[in-house]
Amino acid sequence: MNIGVFDSGFGGLTVLRALFDRLPAADYVYLGDTARLPYGAKSQATVARYAVSSARFLVDQGADYIVIACNTASALALDAIRDAVPVPVLGVIETGADAAQGCTNSGDVLVIATAATVESHAYAAACRKRGLRAYEKACPLLVPLTEEGWIDHPVTEEVLAIYLTELLAESAKTGLKPDTLVLGCTHYPLLRASIERKLPPTIKVIDSADATAAQVAATLTIPAPTGEESPQRTFYATDSVQKFRNLGTRFLGRPIDYVQLIDLGG
Amino acid sequence: MNIGVFDSGFGGLTVLRALFDRLPAADYVYLGDTARLPYGAKSQATVARYAVSSARFLVDQGADYIVIACNTASALALDAIRDAVPVPVLGVIETGADAAQGCTNSGDVLVIATAATVESHAYAAACRKRGLRAYEKACPLLVPLTEEGWIDHPVTEEVLAIYLTELLAESAKTGLKPDTLVLGCTHYPLLRASIERKLPPTIKVIDSADATAAQVAATLTIPAPTGEESPQRTFYATDSVQKFRNLGTRFLGRPIDYVQLIDLGG
Repeated sequence: MNIGVFDSGFGGLTVLRALFDRLPAADYVYLGDTARLPYGAKSQATVARYAVSSARFLVDQGADYIVIACNTASALALDAIRDAVPVPVLGVIETGADAAQGCTNSGDVLVIATAATVESHAYAAACRKRGLRAYEKACPLLVPLTEEGWIDHPVTEEVLAIYLTELLAESAKTGLKPDTLVLGCTHYPLLRASIERKLPPTIKVIDSADATAAQVAATLTIPAPTGEESPQRTFYATDSVQKFRNLGTRFLGRPIDYVQLIDLGG
Repeated sequence: MNIGVFDSGFGGLTVLRALFDRLPAADYVYLGDTARLPYGAKSQATVARYAVSSARFLVDQGADYIVIACNTASALALDAIRDAVPVPVLGVIETGADAAQGCTNSGDVLVIATAATVESHAYAAACRKRGLRAYEKACPLLVPLTEEGWIDHPVTEEVLAIYLTELLAESAKTGLKPDTLVLGCTHYPLLRASIERKLPPTIKVIDSADATAAQVAATLTIPAPTGEESPQRTFYATDSVQKFRNLGTRFLGRPIDYVQLIDLGG
């Protein structure tokens, strides 16, 4: 079984990390579409075009199951990707909403994500389907702060405090009684500890990366490796492989030895 | 005379604004390659590919003079663009270095810019050609902060204080005695007042957007408009025209009525 994992850049590596932990024997091919990142501030049509070409590339590399490890692409392009490739496709939004459903008692859920994910209201729709109410807020600075490496940094703390204070005030005005917050961007797990410190203890944090890995593991049966052959783990990026290695190591939590540069056009 | 102005997104509108002031009678065609922004964190090969296709588009629209209103594209792709199009091409780096030369007494210059511009050392090379020494520093968070609209915001003040304190300490270690700072990214003019407040009064700030417009005005002779025909000002973007109108208005300092969406592939 070859699992293709795709993100616009590095955030999807938090999903891949969770998949390595849960399904260590599978083969993996990861694509970071770094030449065209970030998706989070772009339109539906543009994100769908980029995501479809990326998913097709993974199928060409032998992937027989695809994880869209990018909330923006899952929100804006899941149907387009499913139409374009002949293998099962799982997005992080549905799995994040499933995990929220399993966690909440009040039925009221907060979601923080990129501008594009929030504008799509994909989380609100997925929550509504499950009988939950969701309040979504865009936090556009969290991705650049994470990519600058400012984790546990006073500026990031201040930005988080601003966003989360606004989120709690805005959602309270709508009459919601949230007890669950979904990290609706695969960069955000790196900020999880800081986010948890700034929330009332009554609000639990859901990491959609981990929820996605759990759902993949529940779906697929991966035979134990037979003898000498160790599983294949291949990385592709559409921009600087040096930067991918350096920054990717932080997201994956382990070194990335080799990244192949590919050109998807554009 | 039709002047084509190109940037990866919105920053180039600060150059266009300066051009409107100096050459109000010219026709303008502006392209923001917003589907592929930001260029500032991408590799030379990727930026050159994007910038060349953008410049060709402007020539196809009738531009007979091109201003690369993007420091990253000027740093990484000026020669490639000059090879690819049959009209004169002016980049912002050379003009910024010219302005620094006209301003400095000590011959020592500071430059703040995106990661890609700094890694190219294009400003250092352009300064060296003019007998100046330059110390360059990447400030990756300033573009996202500006695009979030956090001008005169406490977080932006804090980020600027961190970057500028580091810049002064690092450049002092190299023995430089800088008296000039070049804003080496066309987003930064929006932060000029905050930047000036954080620098010693002995350091003057050069805005490469304005320096570029001055150089264009000195080069071109634009006949006064004849009678009823008002000059044409056309805007193209490769991603959401709604976002371009909203955010672009802030950079241009006046409303943008109409933006045409185009597809450059990718």
